[in-house]
Amino acid sequence: MSSKLFTAEEFETKIKKIKLLLLDVDGILTDATTFYVEGSGFTRVFNMYDGYGIKLLLRAGFPVGIISGGQAKDLQERIKILGIEHFVLGSEDKISSMKTISEKLSIPFENIAYMGDELFDLPALKAAGISITVPGAVEEVKNQVNWITKKSGGDGAVREIIDAIRKSQNLTH
Amino acid sequence: MSSKLFTAEEFETKIKKIKLLLLDVDGILTDATTFYVEGSGFTRVFNMYDGYGIKLLLRAGFPVGIISGGQAKDLQERIKILGIEHFVLGSEDKISSMKTISEKLSIPFENIAYMGDELFDLPALKAAGISITVPGAVEEVKNQVNWITKKSGGDGAVREIIDAIRKSQNLTH
Amino acid sequence: MSSKLFTAEEFETKIKKIKLLLLDVDGILTDATTFYVEGSGFTRVFNMYDGYGIKLLLRAGFPVGIISGGQAKDLQERIKILGIEHFVLGSEDKISSMKTISEKLSIPFENIAYMGDELFDLPALKAAGISITVPGAVEEVKNQVNWITKKSGGDGAVREIIDAIRKSQNLTH
Amino acid sequence: MSSKLFTAEEFETKIKKIKLLLLDVDGILTDATTFYVEGSGFTRVFNMYDGYGIKLLLRAGFPVGIISGGQAKDLQERIKILGIEHFVLGSEDKISSMKTISEKLSIPFENIAYMGDELFDLPALKAAGISITVPGAVEEVKNQVNWITKKSGGDGAVREIIDAIRKSQNLTH
Repeated sequence: MSSKLFTAEEFETKIKKIKLLLLDVDGILTDATTFYVEGSGFTRVFNMYDGYGIKLLLRAGFPVGIISGGQAKDLQERIKILGIEHFVLGSEDKISSMKTISEKLSIPFENIAYMGDELFDLPALKAAGISITVPGAVEEVKNQVNWITKKSGGDGAVREIIDAIRKSQNLTH
Repeated sequence: MSSKLFTAEEFETKIKKIKLLLLDVDGILTDATTFYVEGSGFTRVFNMYDGYGIKLLLRAGFPVGIISGGQAKDLQERIKILGIEHFVLGSEDKISSMKTISEKLSIPFENIAYMGDELFDLPALKAAGISITVPGAVEEVKNQVNWITKKSGGDGAVREIIDAIRKSQNLTH
Repeated sequence: MSSKLFTAEEFETKIKKIKLLLLDVDGILTDATTFYVEGSGFTRVFNMYDGYGIKLLLRAGFPVGIISGGQAKDLQERIKILGIEHFVLGSEDKISSMKTISEKLSIPFENIAYMGDELFDLPALKAAGISITVPGAVEEVKNQVNWITKKSGGDGAVREIIDAIRKSQNLTH
Repeated sequence: MSSKLFTAEEFETKIKKIKLLLLDVDGILTDATTFYVEGSGFTRVFNMYDGYGIKLLLRAGFPVGIISGGQAKDLQERIKILGIEHFVLGSEDKISSMKTISEKLSIPFENIAYMGDELFDLPALKAAGISITVPGAVEEVKNQVNWITKKSGGDGAVREIIDAIRKSQNLTH
């Protein structure tokens, strides 16, 4: 296991200081699958628990951003429905995208929780205040992060982290 | 665990008195996933065991209603195919929707079984005669209900409750 | 458990005499899920192992039939692709459909293996030479059949039976 | 189990010599399911971890080819997006397809890793330097291969082999 892995106590201390949640899409907000439908292109399966969790954070004034190498129609529609204002699509250079959003919101990297699961997420994961991945992530990523969710990507992994933020920062109602 | 959780005996006693089954959609009639298809919008995956169970109750004269924050085309088509007459779509104020159907059918809250899995279902769950959720529901809901199904949402959870109603009220044929 | 359940030996003896495999669709050739796509209606997820198994039987001159309450476009396309000649769609009266195919092929009920999973399959299941269901079937069906597959519907349950037929009747090549 | 099954050491020795990865599609790059959408025909669910793994190999100059009995639109689009140059679609005669690609690239069979899961993959599997299948493959195939992946088809089985190739041949970066 990674020497960077937090204990539950360290996670609790760190999550209290997080002011921005940045999310990769494939494998994090989805189970990493995709299928083609004529007229829609390659589409993905999202999770309603994650979606409502994002809405809850946004309503509480806590920003959530999306950084994805993809830019398909389904992702754009999902972002619109959830009311996510901060996103960078179509780039695998995740750390540049993270910098863009970080500067726009004046939230330094140390106050950012980043969830990602692929090799191209590693620079952003290493730079973030908390690096989080999912059980299905590639090994190189699982060996480098601070936290691995219990739930899988596309099956509530993002909601799990959102609920931890909500609880630790008293954003529940 | 919740102090509100019924024993099998309490469940059996209560289910005998139920005269209306009210269902949330995402996570209850589905596994909480959704995907976008151009021309259809965000669509969901339903379960045929649940569907046939609903038809069996309706044929036996036992009303089944649907209360959902969503109102997409697929949900409207599903309601039509199953022959469900009582539904309120597009509102997260579930208890108002429950009241509307309750008054229309002259069935008081204590004779209603409500199945839901999200925070916005809590007021309706607390007011219903029996509150039921699924194993994948958010913790706040699982801690407040009378019963948690064995089967998952979208994988026969609704049929499980329907079969309990059919058996306890001799609606089998 | 059902008193009708065969031992492995009884199954082996019976499967040798089977001359026609009749299949229900939802829950047998699929995992009982369905989703709506505008222009396609409610569609279902099929399995390629089942599909190739059906092709292997048909090439060996062993007939396979489909009996379904549904008649959606996807099912019609699947039947066409697999080259299935004998099918009755759009009727829940399965035993009448079974009789139609039985008479057409001059194969008596005792030489028919029927796979089904719902209440409306029970009359046909009871009349067939071997009644087979899947682990996810409703309890009333599981309690009445001769055999329950190891694999789930939509995940190779039909191929499992097809391979048993192929092996016992030396249809492998 | 098959007497052809490699030990971990034998696998490690063999994988070092592989110069071409050839992939069957259904069951290998997918979970063997398919569904019909009007205008798209039968479509399949692919995995992003597999997809990115294929891109990584191609960027490192290591060829990846696809050999499939299918030729649907979704498969053609997937091949285009991943930048795969060597493929033969629409033929169940896999060993002829393997020969075509083998000769084009001047890579003999003994330096080819072939992943397949069905009866029609057997001749190509037997001729390849390493024959690999997935846990869900049909028994006849599982009994004849050198290696069975831990991950399932459509759930990262191909990435698992790609990562083994990358590690053994120092293609990581």
